Amino acid sequence: MIDLRSDTVTLPTSAMREAISRAELGDDVYGEDPTVEDLEQHVARLLGKEAGLLVPSGTMGNLCAMLAHCARGSRVIVGNESHIFCSEAGGASVLGGLVLHSIRNTADGGLDAGELADALESPDDAHVAPAGLVALENTHNRCGGTVLDAAYVGRVAREAHARGVPLHIDGARLFNAQVALGVSARSLVEDADSVQICFSKGLSAPVGSMLLGTKAFIHQARRARKMLGGGMRQAGILAAACRLAIDEMVARLADDHARARRLAEGIAAAGAPGFHVIPPATNIVLVRAERADGSIARVVSRLRDEGVHVNRVNDVRLRAVLHRGIGDEDVERAASAFQRVLRGS
Amino acid sequence: MIDLRSDTVTLPTSAMREAISRAELGDDVYGEDPTVEDLEQHVARLLGKEAGLLVPSGTMGNLCAMLAHCARGSRVIVGNESHIFCSEAGGASVLGGLVLHSIRNTADGGLDAGELADALESPDDAHVAPAGLVALENTHNRCGGTVLDAAYVGRVAREAHARGVPLHIDGARLFNAQVALGVSARSLVEDADSVQICFSKGLSAPVGSMLLGTKAFIHQARRARKMLGGGMRQAGILAAACRLAIDEMVARLADDHARARRLAEGIAAAGAPGFHVIPPATNIVLVRAERADGSIARVVSRLRDEGVHVNRVNDVRLRAVLHRGIGDEDVERAASAFQRVLRGS
Amino acid sequence: MIDLRSDTVTLPTSAMREAISRAELGDDVYGEDPTVEDLEQHVARLLGKEAGLLVPSGTMGNLCAMLAHCARGSRVIVGNESHIFCSEAGGASVLGGLVLHSIRNTADGGLDAGELADALESPDDAHVAPAGLVALENTHNRCGGTVLDAAYVGRVAREAHARGVPLHIDGARLFNAQVALGVSARSLVEDADSVQICFSKGLSAPVGSMLLGTKAFIHQARRARKMLGGGMRQAGILAAACRLAIDEMVARLADDHARARRLAEGIAAAGAPGFHVIPPATNIVLVRAERADGSIARVVSRLRDEGVHVNRVNDVRLRAVLHRGIGDEDVERAASAFQRVLRGS
Amino acid sequence: MIDLRSDTVTLPTSAMREAISRAELGDDVYGEDPTVEDLEQHVARLLGKEAGLLVPSGTMGNLCAMLAHCARGSRVIVGNESHIFCSEAGGASVLGGLVLHSIRNTADGGLDAGELADALESPDDAHVAPAGLVALENTHNRCGGTVLDAAYVGRVAREAHARGVPLHIDGARLFNAQVALGVSARSLVEDADSVQICFSKGLSAPVGSMLLGTKAFIHQARRARKMLGGGMRQAGILAAACRLAIDEMVARLADDHARARRLAEGIAAAGAPGFHVIPPATNIVLVRAERADGSIARVVSRLRDEGVHVNRVNDVRLRAVLHRGIGDEDVERAASAFQRVLRGS
Repeated sequence: MIDLRSDTVTLPTSAMREAISRAELGDDVYGEDPTVEDLEQHVARLLGKEAGLLVPSGTMGNLCAMLAHCARGSRVIVGNESHIFCSEAGGASVLGGLVLHSIRNTADGGLDAGELADALESPDDAHVAPAGLVALENTHNRCGGTVLDAAYVGRVAREAHARGVPLHIDGARLFNAQVALGVSARSLVEDADSVQICFSKGLSAPVGSMLLGTKAFIHQARRARKMLGGGMRQAGILAAACRLAIDEMVARLADDHARARRLAEGIAAAGAPGFHVIPPATNIVLVRAERADGSIARVVSRLRDEGVHVNRVNDVRLRAVLHRGIGDEDVERAASAFQRVLRGS
Repeated sequence: MIDLRSDTVTLPTSAMREAISRAELGDDVYGEDPTVEDLEQHVARLLGKEAGLLVPSGTMGNLCAMLAHCARGSRVIVGNESHIFCSEAGGASVLGGLVLHSIRNTADGGLDAGELADALESPDDAHVAPAGLVALENTHNRCGGTVLDAAYVGRVAREAHARGVPLHIDGARLFNAQVALGVSARSLVEDADSVQICFSKGLSAPVGSMLLGTKAFIHQARRARKMLGGGMRQAGILAAACRLAIDEMVARLADDHARARRLAEGIAAAGAPGFHVIPPATNIVLVRAERADGSIARVVSRLRDEGVHVNRVNDVRLRAVLHRGIGDEDVERAASAFQRVLRGS
Repeated sequence: MIDLRSDTVTLPTSAMREAISRAELGDDVYGEDPTVEDLEQHVARLLGKEAGLLVPSGTMGNLCAMLAHCARGSRVIVGNESHIFCSEAGGASVLGGLVLHSIRNTADGGLDAGELADALESPDDAHVAPAGLVALENTHNRCGGTVLDAAYVGRVAREAHARGVPLHIDGARLFNAQVALGVSARSLVEDADSVQICFSKGLSAPVGSMLLGTKAFIHQARRARKMLGGGMRQAGILAAACRLAIDEMVARLADDHARARRLAEGIAAAGAPGFHVIPPATNIVLVRAERADGSIARVVSRLRDEGVHVNRVNDVRLRAVLHRGIGDEDVERAASAFQRVLRGS
Repeated sequence: MIDLRSDTVTLPTSAMREAISRAELGDDVYGEDPTVEDLEQHVARLLGKEAGLLVPSGTMGNLCAMLAHCARGSRVIVGNESHIFCSEAGGASVLGGLVLHSIRNTADGGLDAGELADALESPDDAHVAPAGLVALENTHNRCGGTVLDAAYVGRVAREAHARGVPLHIDGARLFNAQVALGVSARSLVEDADSVQICFSKGLSAPVGSMLLGTKAFIHQARRARKMLGGGMRQAGILAAACRLAIDEMVARLADDHARARRLAEGIAAAGAPGFHVIPPATNIVLVRAERADGSIARVVSRLRDEGVHVNRVNDVRLRAVLHRGIGDEDVERAASAFQRVLRGS
């Protein structure tokens, strides 16, 4: 099986397993795991933030961010295709007493400018939940791994800050954006008040994400993490692999991007009417169907029969994600399978 | 001052005051206020529902409906211009652990068909909050008092029910729709699982709304009402006026609709470039500005100087609402003021 | 039927009905109902607070207070017999993301001193929800209408304030305490940060309670009230009766207290083994059974057969409440019925 | 430093590190990590439950249990000294819309029988949050590692079930109870609907707890886990160590219990007036002060100066916990330090 469902399926490297088995450990709930502390400080320095907090998942990182930034009753402004809105079970609303205000994502993963301006309006009016946070996603998963550059992030940050509203970045795949743009991840989050990054996904650590921001913010987020049940004891077991993920695995994301482009070209070569492939900015290839007629589900199913596992996003989109477990030959085979299936659809 | 901000400013009639002063009362928390019980049964019969629940506001009626229909963690699908989403402080999310999933309202106050179909998809996937309710609004306030007919309501109901999702109607101004369409309010909610109506607004009762649905649903809603603090003791004081509102004030809404049309014509006659008035379906006149350049705020402010009070909806919309307190002469004066102000803008 | 279930069953006086029918009204959601505004200012002055907020019930007043005082995640310290803990469906937790920390009520309706000191401990420890509010209840319903004096309230306030924790008083029957102690209600809430009072209950208004505190606090509470659905339009309809309740009905509570004592003496005269009556401090008579053997339920049922309606509180307590609808003769008849039933039990 | 703060400070064994480095992995969010699946099935069989769910902490296991068992608005009946009530930041209330109803813990970690019977009363009354769950804790941390036997668990289960209320067991240290009683852990949870156990603590795994119950329950809990952010990708990294914890580390808990008894005897030998030590049932030694005069805080601080680290529980209790990192010699040294400090207090 060529598994293109997600880069979350990546397995740890031998070096990671080795690092885990030798990690110096302590009780992180008491703040005494040296491997965790080193990692939190290391990534904070790397991203230009004061402090970091290791969490078991990106979902928890985003949720802690929303809980720490926002008082009960405020509005979190997110894209209607964002992971926070579409794929985190609405936790901010269900658990945190926050209103998820979804506005249109543009094709590149940004936010519709007019809707953002409207959403940021926050009169002192009891009818209206006050704006409490804007969240961007970079790279943007459901938009196809699209990349937001520092200038765009800065513009959104200034607009939010002008209204007294902080900016969070869901950077589950931030390092893919760094590699795609050839700039530092730090520059991409400079204007943001907080950022969440994942060590799993393309960076291949088994488990772990980190939330970063000011010390005061991380103090609040740490409280939220404990309440959610994300406080872990000898978490250095996870942090040891995360350290290698961030130190040694970022550069190789370029390979995934190159393979994504090759796969997209191969799919496009099918010339299948009714489908088109979006030229990928990073490691995610989106294929769109022109009609919501069940064709996407059929393509996903037939690809599976051909030994290629991809994810249906919705009725008009499927997704293939490149990652460390996929080599050049897999790409060629997957492209061929796509061609057979799409032509036959 | 000609007060066109909202039909909520209507004062009770003398007959209502008289009825209040003579109302037979009891303790409604014990279920012993005869005036309340009569009203609940009367309106339930009128709208073809099993049971009713008097609440102090439309907001509480909608909130009780969402709490009674939806388990923690489910998604309420609403229009992005709906009162529930825009003007109820996000209570369903803040208080009820529900996700407000706003999809695009069409110009007539309906829901974008494609977005509704997507939103109703509710896979058994831990990433996704399950769809728990669809809510329509009829007439639709922010869309300009637009009317949804029974056929449309039926279509949405069937689509929702096919997915096992109930349909609620926010009918704060349902009787305006009845009058505009010349059909019974009952036929407009026949396919809905619950409906909320207001006795205040155009019907002129001082305070009171009602939620209607099955007995089992109203039993749950009654629990929610108590928890929210909406249980009232001798609530017959309110119900007595509500009874006159629904028995004697519905027909007169036609006057408000006629005056709304006259006002809209008067505003249109201004021929002011950059503004246009939406021909009103009921008692709400919307004026739209082509540009979000602050002109709406200026118009609202100058109208006020001219003795006409209207509400800014957002940067490109203002609203004038006709009601029992506004006569023909007021309409003429308001139209003139609009003409002076719009031409001078 | 002699209805001793609760003083909530009291009907408005003719003067109240008359005042309602003549009340000057406006739209209170716009802050324009003069009768409501007058009432809020009047009661605020009377109780020495900056501002007041009319709400449809005591439950909503308490809930708005907790939402306005407490950030998500904090602890509200209440008595385990308090109305907030036992009879408001846990709204603070269910709706507001607050932890209800119930500690033992002493027999007089105060809070166990040791448990209060422990509960106020609020280390900066992620395991522990921070203390956010202490709430007292005066008079204390389930403890039998017991009265807390100003010195006690002051002590609790100082202890709470020393920890940075505000004090709220659920004063649904605060004026019963005023009358029982012969001091001003104002002196009883002087050290509290907020207080909720009811105009219904013994004061006989049909509907209405008020929350009082600083202007900033009431501003937040007003937002909470709107979200809960407690914003009412021409609420002067209610306020007009509430004004008479507070201006003219307080003194007569002394009659209820006297009748409560007479009823208690009458019950005690039964000399029924296994039961004892608590000498009432105000208008609530508690009868306790020595054993949780179903005898309370039997007594309540037999009293009902004798034409006397009282409330079972729990397996070892029933409650008879005196109010304006109960005269001296009713008390004699009720006492006789109690004697017959208790002796026969 | 002799670290007796908690058994959570235990480090993994070499065998655990080795197992981690060789673990077969997959993406557990897709249900494809074989090491996790094996562990879940293994522990489920061991404890006689249908299914298990690996979570990052006991707090998350308990929270998922409460969310999966209880609808919004219901009451969770817990001991006032329970971990759920005292040390999980009130998550069930803050995040889950549940009311934590704390009743008195008896000295042995059970629940006061009369208060439990009262709390289980759940009339269909809108004033009262319905009882939704009872939770026991075995062994009971704050009561001093006390043990509940199967007969007691069965009695509570029957009482709860008679009211239609399920029973959850917080078994963070369940295997200490197994060892202390010389019965199977399975027999201790047989009558419970769900149980949470920890592989960290005395069993020495670095990270990991498990929730167990029926398949349908675990399906719901899995949804809750994802929303909370507890879904982890290659979680086999943790599960590999957890497997050794449960297979190979349970028997050794007897050593901790023996050392706890020796430490308690050593402390008792101090004969310090004003303090007494509770004879430990398992691995937790409680020392109580007779007076809440700050003496506990002083003892904790002086012990620290002597190289012995214990935890202050509250003003009248401190706790010393035995675990794999503490040998016989440490116990002797700790006992001596206690004697010096207590005699000097």
